[in-house]
Amino acid sequence: MQHSSQHHTHGTTGMSPAMQACIEACGECHDVCLTTVQHCLQHGGQHVEPAHMTIMMDCVQICETAKDFMLRGSRLHAQVCRACAEVCEACAQSCEAIDDPDGAMRACADACRRCAQECRRMAQAA
Amino acid sequence: MQHSSQHHTHGTTGMSPAMQACIEACGECHDVCLTTVQHCLQHGGQHVEPAHMTIMMDCVQICETAKDFMLRGSRLHAQVCRACAEVCEACAQSCEAIDDPDGAMRACADACRRCAQECRRMAQAA
Amino acid sequence: MQHSSQHHTHGTTGMSPAMQACIEACGECHDVCLTTVQHCLQHGGQHVEPAHMTIMMDCVQICETAKDFMLRGSRLHAQVCRACAEVCEACAQSCEAIDDPDGAMRACADACRRCAQECRRMAQAA
Amino acid sequence: MQHSSQHHTHGTTGMSPAMQACIEACGECHDVCLTTVQHCLQHGGQHVEPAHMTIMMDCVQICETAKDFMLRGSRLHAQVCRACAEVCEACAQSCEAIDDPDGAMRACADACRRCAQECRRMAQAA
Repeated sequence: MQHSSQHHTHGTTGMSPAMQACIEACGECHDVCLTTVQHCLQHGGQHVEPAHMTIMMDCVQICETAKDFMLRGSRLHAQVCRACAEVCEACAQSCEAIDDPDGAMRACADACRRCAQECRRMAQAA
Repeated sequence: MQHSSQHHTHGTTGMSPAMQACIEACGECHDVCLTTVQHCLQHGGQHVEPAHMTIMMDCVQICETAKDFMLRGSRLHAQVCRACAEVCEACAQSCEAIDDPDGAMRACADACRRCAQECRRMAQAA
Repeated sequence: MQHSSQHHTHGTTGMSPAMQACIEACGECHDVCLTTVQHCLQHGGQHVEPAHMTIMMDCVQICETAKDFMLRGSRLHAQVCRACAEVCEACAQSCEAIDDPDGAMRACADACRRCAQECRRMAQAA
Repeated sequence: MQHSSQHHTHGTTGMSPAMQACIEACGECHDVCLTTVQHCLQHGGQHVEPAHMTIMMDCVQICETAKDFMLRGSRLHAQVCRACAEVCEACAQSCEAIDDPDGAMRACADACRRCAQECRRMAQAA
């Protein structure tokens, strides 16, 4: 599961590079978490433990919300980025606690950590 | 535009009364803000000033997100409720600054204030 | 899990009774499905079978989308209501195929069926 | 406003190229429409005409919903893609009817048309 500098979020010309990076990280985290939910459902066991599945779904939703606040040019994006950073951090930890023979949980945790970091930056900059 | 004790959120049996009240207030605020966006578009002028329209759309989205975190039984709902309270408070102020011959902006501000109050309670209780 | 005439969707004054009923049914179905996802995660086994969990999450999202189209006064709500009816119908069937000692899956299937019926009506009226 | 082959949707390894293209087109259309809503609010006049703003918000939401259905591996994605194609087509037409000195509405219409085309393909393939 590749992530990369190739990615380009559309319609963000004129935004600060930090905000563009945050939008990109939120979009990536949303997409990776949503596909990883499917992976978890396929594997069962630890992967569908209620607390883990719940935080995965939390992460999918708050990442989209934070991304949309930034795309919409909201002056209140920092509040949502702060919440998003905390959810992503917790989701990363939940992913790391699960057996991971194929690296899917590691890839998901990585996307969550990148998003948490970018969101913390946005929250602090405001 | 009526709001009331008649409202009943489905599937919340077993939740604390405070959380039920918060889910209800978020649902009401989401619905009222979304219909008030239409009202604003119809009226034009001040009502479609970019900062006002943006915060209305912010409020629609964060209220749904906060409500869903609670319905989902998320242990991280307090973080989202905190962000939601700030957005709702700002949205209430934005609504109150607009000419309001028919009371629609007042009704929207009221829904935002109720939601802000319930969300602050949830954020503090956690 | 009660559903009822007490429910009141906010800000819908001036809409047709059929649309108000559809908005209400979509809101109920979204809420019940989201809380039932938790129920399923707690129970495990058949309840977390991938196809079932996926359709539950589908139903949560399309109901909210259909509801928002109607609250927003969209002239394209019929297209979304048509999709919503099909998803709700499939979700009801998926719920009914699961062991249900406590009636939670039955209650969820009922909410899905009511929503499917109201959405079909909206789709046909357009 | 660039769109390109550089774009990479995360976590879609193993999906058909047609579905990957559709996910990508939905993501692009969601992002472009949401930033174009801001552009419209800044410009006022025709740009904030109620029917136009409403369809822009419709398009933002249904594109995200269609994208999520596909990322989630839903077997019912075709129904949502069908609705999405109709909303995108109507949004493209609405964008094209607006004065467009700087090309922003043209770029938005193009993203909507690409998304409509990919969604029609997904709907027909199912």
